[in-house]
Amino acid sequence: MPRIEFARSVKSSEIIITTAYLTFNTKNRYELVKITPILEEIVAKSGVAEGICFVSPMHITSSIFVNDDESGLHEDFLNWLEKLAPYNPKGYKHNLTGEDNADAHLKRTIMGRETIIAITNGRLDLGPWEEVFYGEFDGQRPKRVIVKVIGAGT
Amino acid sequence: MPRIEFARSVKSSEIIITTAYLTFNTKNRYELVKITPILEEIVAKSGVAEGICFVSPMHITSSIFVNDDESGLHEDFLNWLEKLAPYNPKGYKHNLTGEDNADAHLKRTIMGRETIIAITNGRLDLGPWEEVFYGEFDGQRPKRVIVKVIGAGT
Amino acid sequence: MPRIEFARSVKSSEIIITTAYLTFNTKNRYELVKITPILEEIVAKSGVAEGICFVSPMHITSSIFVNDDESGLHEDFLNWLEKLAPYNPKGYKHNLTGEDNADAHLKRTIMGRETIIAITNGRLDLGPWEEVFYGEFDGQRPKRVIVKVIGAGT
Repeated sequence: MPRIEFARSVKSSEIIITTAYLTFNTKNRYELVKITPILEEIVAKSGVAEGICFVSPMHITSSIFVNDDESGLHEDFLNWLEKLAPYNPKGYKHNLTGEDNADAHLKRTIMGRETIIAITNGRLDLGPWEEVFYGEFDGQRPKRVIVKVIGAGT
Repeated sequence: MPRIEFARSVKSSEIIITTAYLTFNTKNRYELVKITPILEEIVAKSGVAEGICFVSPMHITSSIFVNDDESGLHEDFLNWLEKLAPYNPKGYKHNLTGEDNADAHLKRTIMGRETIIAITNGRLDLGPWEEVFYGEFDGQRPKRVIVKVIGAGT
Repeated sequence: MPRIEFARSVKSSEIIITTAYLTFNTKNRYELVKITPILEEIVAKSGVAEGICFVSPMHITSSIFVNDDESGLHEDFLNWLEKLAPYNPKGYKHNLTGEDNADAHLKRTIMGRETIIAITNGRLDLGPWEEVFYGEFDGQRPKRVIVKVIGAGT
């Protein structure tokens, strides 16, 4: 069984909720973009010291996920997704609507839609190798992401 | 790098937490049911203007996910899940317990368990094509879903 | 369409945010550890009666997920993950960095990173068979998990 460490408990008479939107327009159809520093900036501006940072694409062919900032692994991710959910303009019912991006809906499903990051002491409380990424699977056009920071100030 | 738009920050001396339960009983074993309007109704009743709406099945063979309301894509999803995690009454250890639904546990894992939707200005803050679905992978019996709305009023 | 039950709505002038960290060091490289009782204990100590419990690994080769506490199904999960994302020390670009755990990054992606559990009446509001697990895919060393409990007291 794990060791448990009760770190802190904060009570506040004020709840803070900050909203921001990001707009991406990637150069490539498939692209993974690190966004941790942007989220740190939004959290700092929010004044939230303890809480959560919710991040989600507002499009159904992209993903917010947490993983390693290592280019080899990113290639592995894209190759693996292509194997599990190949680009195949004629291979999906969805593509009969005139789209060619059914694979992007499936790829983003494997990667997950949204992510929450804990906020402790005014910072994203991430582990040593955790970085937050925007995963684009049907890019080369403007796509939005919503960020909601919720919690208590200092 | 993306364009950042800081939209709004709200402070409130009152936190609101509303709980609702949904009960589904689908006609088919596998079924995808759009629930966005029901969630809009719950959020409206909660009085939360800024916050989050958490939605999760209370069963381990179903999913809440966000994607497109397009019937061809829904067929693609079900075909794809059947390929990645086939129904196979004799093919899983779990089915030695007398169950035949091991595939449903795996299918729901790919689709994800839960979803959070941001609330802005009293509405679900979804992108243009985002719709919320209940994904049933072992239906034809009553199954529950929990909804928690958390945030601040106007 | 589902039946809707509006269960309760709570308003409070105090937000509570409690933080705890768990440290796992599993005996095996791949292991699934039930953590529901630990989370119940943390929620009880937090004093939160209505809210959410956010749980996330702080490492990128493990997962927090909800599913059945049935050993056959756990074997099915590990066999299935091995098929979808095999251990293959020479088969991934990431492993050129000297690592051999690229598969663990992919396995955890399928299982999902984080989980939120609703809190109602001071307890985790889980369905009858829902149990929370720590999924380890590159263990045999200390790995941390963060727990944030957010909500209102009684």
